[in-house]
Amino acid sequence: MALLEHELLGIPLLKIYQDSDAFSFSLDSMILSDFVSITKRVKNICDLCTGNAPIPLYLSQRCDANIVGVEVQEESFKLAEMSVDKNNLSSRIKIIHSNLINVSKEIGHNFDIVTVNPPYFKVGCNNINPNDRKAIARHEILATLDDIIKESSSLLNSHGVFAMVHRPDRLLEILDCMRKYRIEPKRLRLCYPKIGSECNNILIEGVKDGAPSLRILEPLYIYNSDNKWTEEVLKIYNLTR
Amino acid sequence: MALLEHELLGIPLLKIYQDSDAFSFSLDSMILSDFVSITKRVKNICDLCTGNAPIPLYLSQRCDANIVGVEVQEESFKLAEMSVDKNNLSSRIKIIHSNLINVSKEIGHNFDIVTVNPPYFKVGCNNINPNDRKAIARHEILATLDDIIKESSSLLNSHGVFAMVHRPDRLLEILDCMRKYRIEPKRLRLCYPKIGSECNNILIEGVKDGAPSLRILEPLYIYNSDNKWTEEVLKIYNLTR
Repeated sequence: MALLEHELLGIPLLKIYQDSDAFSFSLDSMILSDFVSITKRVKNICDLCTGNAPIPLYLSQRCDANIVGVEVQEESFKLAEMSVDKNNLSSRIKIIHSNLINVSKEIGHNFDIVTVNPPYFKVGCNNINPNDRKAIARHEILATLDDIIKESSSLLNSHGVFAMVHRPDRLLEILDCMRKYRIEPKRLRLCYPKIGSECNNILIEGVKDGAPSLRILEPLYIYNSDNKWTEEVLKIYNLTR
Repeated sequence: MALLEHELLGIPLLKIYQDSDAFSFSLDSMILSDFVSITKRVKNICDLCTGNAPIPLYLSQRCDANIVGVEVQEESFKLAEMSVDKNNLSSRIKIIHSNLINVSKEIGHNFDIVTVNPPYFKVGCNNINPNDRKAIARHEILATLDDIIKESSSLLNSHGVFAMVHRPDRLLEILDCMRKYRIEPKRLRLCYPKIGSECNNILIEGVKDGAPSLRILEPLYIYNSDNKWTEEVLKIYNLTR
């Protein structure tokens, strides 16, 4: 286990505990934290599949809301709690050790925002060890896309905001599933490793009980042609200050 | 009416008749003609809402297939026929003067590709003169999105390719409608006026009875920061030869 003194998250300098044996927190969590729409009226945020809590930590710097992170794996849950303590954010961030399915019964249906950086891959394609911690973070072993969006909708207020990062080959399923659970897709941003590449990540935001009207934002490029992070990614990481 | 000696369409230099009172052929038709996947086995192409036939003319330069253009408005139909004649392409391009609804009964169900640059706007939002030629080309007065995709599917072979240009705010409807009529979305390309702008056009391709797997291609930018066409648009117009 390592304590990263994370220079990436701005002032106050956040610290995040990571376990190199488990799933490390990733750029995907950062770009989702940057992408999600937050207004001043937001009081309660829930982050599902929170892992070691990069999204709650990041969002705590964007707003004053109370944030609940939900993590099913005990080791990641412990790291998340330690990171929250280390940053003196226990008054605003609470980490729950629970499977996300039916977690709304425990934490309520009153969230203004639900974020999620979920497992990207369906079970069945590869040989997966279902006890492997990385496998659980990457594959839909303990919760499917449907489970996640269903529970997100249950957690949200009417007109609450749902935001997710995922892979483009799942886009149609995601759009179907959001609407199945009354979350209308409103903003879509596509991420490209660099100019000339196909999209490898999508950022999607929807509003529960919202009116249909989808905007497709400008693309987000991760690397310049010299394989260094683009100015926008540096800004997301707060490295350009 | 004007005869444009269109320098944009490569060798042999194509000529296209346009009527300044009607809907002029547009960049949207060019980028769709460039986008659609054409293999050597393609024998029959149908272009719906063909207008003055820019797409059949362009596609005739990309392949040796026979191409049928369908146009409901008499004036545009006549211009299309004149353009086909003027370019000595009557042996390969046939223009049909017909509403697209049920046109498959007339021209068959055996097409390898159907392209369409349809009316983008629903009827009802604005004051529309239903007899106005531009209004018919721009608004769903004579055929809705559902009509167009239903008929496209009817025109296609199993595993035939459907390609369309449209607006991003209609994306969800388009994806739903394609799948409703057994056309699986396979390739999506988003077009942006320039860097930093939101998407204003989408290019979508699907395969009838295809397996689900959507790729999102690199973005297409229309203008550089100096408001000149990008290199890629110039290539599409064959101006970089």
